[in-house]
Amino acid sequence: MRNLKLTVEYLGTNYYGWQVLPDKPTVAGEIIKALRTILKEEVKLVGASRTDAGVHARGQVANFKTEKEIPKERLIRGLNGLLPPDIKVTKIEEVPLDFDSRRNAKGKEYLYRIFNRSIPSPFEYRRSWFFPFPLNTEKMAEASSFLIGVHDFTSFSKKDRSKEVNPIREVNEIKIEKIGNTIEIRVWGRSFLRHMVRVMVATLVKVGEGKLKPEDVKEILEGRNRERAPFLAPADGLYLEKVFYEDYPY
Amino acid sequence: MRNLKLTVEYLGTNYYGWQVLPDKPTVAGEIIKALRTILKEEVKLVGASRTDAGVHARGQVANFKTEKEIPKERLIRGLNGLLPPDIKVTKIEEVPLDFDSRRNAKGKEYLYRIFNRSIPSPFEYRRSWFFPFPLNTEKMAEASSFLIGVHDFTSFSKKDRSKEVNPIREVNEIKIEKIGNTIEIRVWGRSFLRHMVRVMVATLVKVGEGKLKPEDVKEILEGRNRERAPFLAPADGLYLEKVFYEDYPY
Repeated sequence: MRNLKLTVEYLGTNYYGWQVLPDKPTVAGEIIKALRTILKEEVKLVGASRTDAGVHARGQVANFKTEKEIPKERLIRGLNGLLPPDIKVTKIEEVPLDFDSRRNAKGKEYLYRIFNRSIPSPFEYRRSWFFPFPLNTEKMAEASSFLIGVHDFTSFSKKDRSKEVNPIREVNEIKIEKIGNTIEIRVWGRSFLRHMVRVMVATLVKVGEGKLKPEDVKEILEGRNRERAPFLAPADGLYLEKVFYEDYPY
Repeated sequence: MRNLKLTVEYLGTNYYGWQVLPDKPTVAGEIIKALRTILKEEVKLVGASRTDAGVHARGQVANFKTEKEIPKERLIRGLNGLLPPDIKVTKIEEVPLDFDSRRNAKGKEYLYRIFNRSIPSPFEYRRSWFFPFPLNTEKMAEASSFLIGVHDFTSFSKKDRSKEVNPIREVNEIKIEKIGNTIEIRVWGRSFLRHMVRVMVATLVKVGEGKLKPEDVKEILEGRNRERAPFLAPADGLYLEKVFYEDYPY
């Protein structure tokens, strides 16, 4: 038995997220279909992050087990030949049998891209949040400092049907950088609640617009109530950049 | 009568080039359709460059004349509201009546993007030339020096049915830069023959691969024979970056 770890890039626009769904195109669904064609068997593909519909990845990690002896080089070529242009496997590594891409992840880096110009860009369509009004990135950075550390992120998560999810999470670092017309918000954390990065970004944007004060973010966080935070930022701007295992810097 | 100058960005993937064609989507065709809806009149739209099918632009310039008194601000908002996401007008200026975006252009900057990694990128699909083999950019730069200056570019043009086109052109500058996995080739010239940049790029890539020597480019140029140069590089990688009028630096 071999355990194979895949690093995957995808443009999420045309998919209903990572996780397999019946009768809907998903990223994991496409990879499983390609693996089935090559290996002539059903595999269970575990992804480090269950990215939502429309979310992109430049460094998703997944793993599956197989008895088949196909060389990694042949498998990666075969997979990329079968996969559509918007999903590619960039690396395949053989890992110990007990490696689980989801459970063993020590941290993740997400990037959120905001395209901040009065007129949208043809090159940014579905690849960033088009936001036409001025944003004060210094105020956004000030506001972001309240989110760093171990907190109850109930205000920054999807309202959950199951009450079982522990809302305590640790955000290790947030970096905000303006590059030309694009504002890049990078967030590092051990794990995230569903929608957490997108609600955080929507909140920081409200601060950037001047509709909230940086200190309001502290109050929203302490309120532990999803109704208090702004609506979530669009999926188009979110990228899973990297999943860390032994190499997480925080 | 007013003469309006438009600056236009487009992702060319879904269009049969700039120039209007019957029954085919073209970039100028889409802009004329939007102008017709707003102005309730037929306009003649002159573009600085007749970009080919699949070629992109970050700074195409076009102009048209109208008697209508619509303010520029309202026109740009109206146009961008009607235009598809892959075509946007970024600027409208009123210019003297004798301004012609094509005839008055003093120079143009084209960018050609090569994605140079063993595995294609979902984010680069149709936005660059995917080239999986190693390229020596120093040799490419050396080869490019032979193309600079005033030359007969017959070897680097589309074989023309009409013999009337003057094959003498001036290339002012070529810069080759490696940024991550992308090789950017920028070319400045007063005007270009049809396919000229793409044949030049294909030739430089042959040098980068080691299949041609830098000096061979001089020989191909002097041969004045289209059969001697390699086939043209794909349209996907080509961007019209800027059209210069009084501000051309060469």
